[in-house]
Amino acid sequence: MGNELDILRAFLPTLPTADSVPLGPGDDCAAIEIGDGALLLAAVDQLIGDVHYYRESTAPKAAGAKLLKRNLSDIAAMGGVPRWALLTLASEGRDAEWLLRFCRGVAETAACYDVNLCGGDIASLPQNCRTEVTTLTILGTVHAGKMLRRSGASVGDYLYVTGALGNSLASGHHLTFTPRLAEGRFLASSHLATAMMDISDGLLLDAARLAESSGVMLEIDPERLPLRDGADTAMALSDGEDYELLFTVPAAFAVELEWNFPQHLAPIRRIGRAIPAGGGTHVCDPTGNDLLKNRRGGYEH
Amino acid sequence: MGNELDILRAFLPTLPTADSVPLGPGDDCAAIEIGDGALLLAAVDQLIGDVHYYRESTAPKAAGAKLLKRNLSDIAAMGGVPRWALLTLASEGRDAEWLLRFCRGVAETAACYDVNLCGGDIASLPQNCRTEVTTLTILGTVHAGKMLRRSGASVGDYLYVTGALGNSLASGHHLTFTPRLAEGRFLASSHLATAMMDISDGLLLDAARLAESSGVMLEIDPERLPLRDGADTAMALSDGEDYELLFTVPAAFAVELEWNFPQHLAPIRRIGRAIPAGGGTHVCDPTGNDLLKNRRGGYEH
Repeated sequence: MGNELDILRAFLPTLPTADSVPLGPGDDCAAIEIGDGALLLAAVDQLIGDVHYYRESTAPKAAGAKLLKRNLSDIAAMGGVPRWALLTLASEGRDAEWLLRFCRGVAETAACYDVNLCGGDIASLPQNCRTEVTTLTILGTVHAGKMLRRSGASVGDYLYVTGALGNSLASGHHLTFTPRLAEGRFLASSHLATAMMDISDGLLLDAARLAESSGVMLEIDPERLPLRDGADTAMALSDGEDYELLFTVPAAFAVELEWNFPQHLAPIRRIGRAIPAGGGTHVCDPTGNDLLKNRRGGYEH
Repeated sequence: MGNELDILRAFLPTLPTADSVPLGPGDDCAAIEIGDGALLLAAVDQLIGDVHYYRESTAPKAAGAKLLKRNLSDIAAMGGVPRWALLTLASEGRDAEWLLRFCRGVAETAACYDVNLCGGDIASLPQNCRTEVTTLTILGTVHAGKMLRRSGASVGDYLYVTGALGNSLASGHHLTFTPRLAEGRFLASSHLATAMMDISDGLLLDAARLAESSGVMLEIDPERLPLRDGADTAMALSDGEDYELLFTVPAAFAVELEWNFPQHLAPIRRIGRAIPAGGGTHVCDPTGNDLLKNRRGGYEH
């Protein structure tokens, strides 16, 4: 289905945006004006059995928690505060106990993050479809002056990541990760960062998106990547489901950022810089090689 | 899956609601305080191939339009104005053209109703699942003082419906219906109605929900039901997908309502009244027979 779905993915950002929507499809969240300088952040994500987790081996509570945390990572990427959520679940061939545990996984994680699960819908799948299709809509808030988009990077900015990259599936990180909400909020509130997004489809793919949105090229030094346990550089470049933050900071603020970044948060690492866009390349290494063109497999939801 | 899903449906309303959420799961929409007396309405609904429409015979644009209009009907039921929407689509075994037409059906209908489609997510289903699972999250606004809930009916109120009931599937109404937004807004703004919901699972089932929420019994006169072309009384009582509004009005306001209800809107019809709750019966006929207990099949999503 890859090709068909790419056509659809390209369709959404072509839709006209309303005056009330300063940020439409194409960023981690949409942003909607709700008055008094406040923006409502809205995003939706899907989690599908045997696509995003193994139906046989994944604990239902962990799958439910993952569904919510993926969405929290999108709110984190804007510098926002998650507030409310709506859940859908369509299923066939699961017993009530599994489904209830899944929903409890969502609800308990929501309580941990002070998110109110305020609505939802439950439906059957056709009988030949033995899986679960679940979605979560996350709503959050952010002050208009503090929101960070993908499009804000300028030539000369340094590129940073939080935490560590690669080997998310084998290490279990894709289930156990902590969304970088506090880190995102610090970066947005400090007014030090210029652009931000979360890394969910692999560093290279996501960095290319940030680069394209901002109209720059991102030069990434593979030797500087923070590696998750069991990951090598190739994995850190291409593996998906890191749920870390990728952000840019003007070079003049880099020392201030690194000095002031709170110790109790995930560590940050400078991994590159923004250079002038050129030749259709979005992500290169320090010798100018196009990193995306010859990358290993990678993972796209 | 019916039984398992009922357990889940019962789970959502047990979740704690936040101070910012005056109305949580269990009504047509959740309502969220966003300041200045404004409420954000939020609801999510699913549309699944070969569950909610025939995959072989339904035009993709009509299916897409239906997904949005079902959600608009939920906003109508609160007396609100639909504003923004997020779409998800998970699919396997469809060509790009079908999927694109489906999305255009959503987008064009959104434009008709001045709804901004501001986000979404596209994913694959596992290969054995040849269907589409689509969801739409609708966001709208309503003034706190004008919102109509299911729980507001009192003994003595008259019960009304808009439009006509029954035979939705065979007549094509389930695809071609017009969500009763203007009617809902008039009823909410006029302060004449006390409770409201939309009829999606059949009059009896939905009336029983309104009765239970309000702590009353609803006496419905089957001879007064407005019938859609091709429908008989049994169909009007039990068939699903009417997408009409069911609402209550104090008897003292009935003449004022009927006199002032705008001519260009869908007609309204008085079909019963609220009487004291009792004995676990929620919906009865004028002779006191429990209408729900012995109803014909009916349709639940």
